[in-house]
Amino acid sequence: MAEKKIGKQTVSFEMSPYIIGAAAVGGKKEGEGPLYRFFDQILDDDMFGEKTWEKAESKMLKEAMLAALQKSGKEKKEIDLVLSGDLLNQLMSSSFMARDLHLPFLGLYGACSTMTESLLLGSMLTDGGFAHNIIVGASSHFCTAERQFRMPVEHGNQRPPSAQWTATAAGAMIISEKMADLTQIGTLDGRKATQPTSLVNIRVDCGTIGKVIDAGVKDANQMGSAMAPAAVDTILNHLEDTGRSLDYYDLVLTGDLGYIGKDIAADLLKDAGLDAEAVSQRYDDCGTMLYDREAQDVHGGGSGCGCSASVFCGNIIQRMRSGELSKVLLISTGAMLSTISPFQGESIPGIAHAVSLTTC
Amino acid sequence: MAEKKIGKQTVSFEMSPYIIGAAAVGGKKEGEGPLYRFFDQILDDDMFGEKTWEKAESKMLKEAMLAALQKSGKEKKEIDLVLSGDLLNQLMSSSFMARDLHLPFLGLYGACSTMTESLLLGSMLTDGGFAHNIIVGASSHFCTAERQFRMPVEHGNQRPPSAQWTATAAGAMIISEKMADLTQIGTLDGRKATQPTSLVNIRVDCGTIGKVIDAGVKDANQMGSAMAPAAVDTILNHLEDTGRSLDYYDLVLTGDLGYIGKDIAADLLKDAGLDAEAVSQRYDDCGTMLYDREAQDVHGGGSGCGCSASVFCGNIIQRMRSGELSKVLLISTGAMLSTISPFQGESIPGIAHAVSLTTC
Repeated sequence: MAEKKIGKQTVSFEMSPYIIGAAAVGGKKEGEGPLYRFFDQILDDDMFGEKTWEKAESKMLKEAMLAALQKSGKEKKEIDLVLSGDLLNQLMSSSFMARDLHLPFLGLYGACSTMTESLLLGSMLTDGGFAHNIIVGASSHFCTAERQFRMPVEHGNQRPPSAQWTATAAGAMIISEKMADLTQIGTLDGRKATQPTSLVNIRVDCGTIGKVIDAGVKDANQMGSAMAPAAVDTILNHLEDTGRSLDYYDLVLTGDLGYIGKDIAADLLKDAGLDAEAVSQRYDDCGTMLYDREAQDVHGGGSGCGCSASVFCGNIIQRMRSGELSKVLLISTGAMLSTISPFQGESIPGIAHAVSLTTC
Repeated sequence: MAEKKIGKQTVSFEMSPYIIGAAAVGGKKEGEGPLYRFFDQILDDDMFGEKTWEKAESKMLKEAMLAALQKSGKEKKEIDLVLSGDLLNQLMSSSFMARDLHLPFLGLYGACSTMTESLLLGSMLTDGGFAHNIIVGASSHFCTAERQFRMPVEHGNQRPPSAQWTATAAGAMIISEKMADLTQIGTLDGRKATQPTSLVNIRVDCGTIGKVIDAGVKDANQMGSAMAPAAVDTILNHLEDTGRSLDYYDLVLTGDLGYIGKDIAADLLKDAGLDAEAVSQRYDDCGTMLYDREAQDVHGGGSGCGCSASVFCGNIIQRMRSGELSKVLLISTGAMLSTISPFQGESIPGIAHAVSLTTC
């Protein structure tokens, strides 16, 4: 068997699994942002017809998975496994989604890094021969996260300028050992304008599993600062393990560092010796893409598992499919603090996993 | 490549990864139970020298991992990945352990099914060629779980007879593509009496990924009843997928159904047509093994991720190493309720993953 472990933290694939379907669902606010065209579904009301926010989030995740499944042309019975996670205590959104889908399920928790955790694990299990088709996904909801991690929503608490806005969004993908049915995808993709004939396949090329990095940040309203060192550590290890430079990628995209965290990450990458021009040209962050900074008043930018999940499964995947982007490194970033750890004087551990994607 | 997906939910391994080290750490109460000889470390005080219960739990998990690592004869730098989880919101124990160990980390949440979730994923990633050596583990702590899921510990709330006792315990294993150093293990195992010459290797043979099954139970003091249908579903699917009968195994061991749940699972297995004698002779539950039912007053039996983790990584592994048990099916069981889902009128979803182990 070919060596699939490269360097210290990176895994590569023998057959590079395909992403044969991807879909994003967004809340009302996300649907009013600059990426509105790339969502498969935008909620009119963030309750999504459910009695609780938690059920609404779970339904969003399920809908994203079912939309991705429809695009893949696969049927539910062809799916071997669902891998997903969310921010809620005891993975409530994912557990209730898995109860409805009734498929083999493994729950993951990587805070907002869960999209790349599920994508990377799903790719390894597919490449390892343990599954033919896997659904991966992640979700978050502003109201469920706000009441769990911060203040009761009804309280209308004032948020400091560095605080990020938890995205009400979900993203899901179908990972497969076989190529995508591009006709199917062309008809169903969010912007619906693309001709199937011009679409390309997307494969997962390799990935880098992150370490928990704690930079000592104790302010839960400074998530970007807390997670940026973990993102940079993973990017640098990825480049070292693979022998690639930043220029190899058309886009290097962190998960949800937001405006402040993105600036810190860019500075740290330059400090580490990466080419400053490459950093400013190729590096971006999902948390700065999801909302309109001026018009939507989200302070520090977007965050939550659903931020990188929906930006990637919507915008990025569709730009790759149409050939606009060819090589992308996605690094979803998670802040592994708990609801009680800050009260116990603990700083915020960060983690980030990277997945390299390529069109073919 | 040989087909590694068998039937609907089962995966088999090309090279059957080895368990080259395993260790269990237990709290004071667990150390007073019938399995005291099999623990590698027993706490004098469940604070374990830390300022908070959460930090104590995290330290237990780390100590179990380091003890397993020592037995494996491997050094930390030879470990490619850590896979673990616990019951705490945002995986606090695992996240803080991973911060200390500073190794690539993927966080898992399967409630009390996490031990088999990590063991199964670790085996797939090793067999798939993505890692040479992986640490897997899980932990729980009575005090952290009690205050998170039930009542403030200081309140001294009365517990109904069906309530289970969350184990203060952690278990960890090293999964490897290569055989164990049995001399090393013989010297370091809990009971310390075994001659290394008589020890055998343990391999992971195959595993079955569970579905979320909700039997409609709404009482959070009836976890065994809530999880038993998921355990039985996974066992039946495992037997169907592999074509094995219950007699194939020396021991079929659920995670933490406790006294009530074990009886329900046994009844359901018999109702499903399995041989009643085989069920009564070969089926047992970790939650009924960890404590002395009469002397230790744990009501419904043991529970928590640490229950099946410590019983398996201590007692069962050592009984397999010495040749007493040859073929074991471990099915850790998880109740995927959240701290708020019962207040929202939701029933308790259950999940169970099975791992088949064999000596050689």
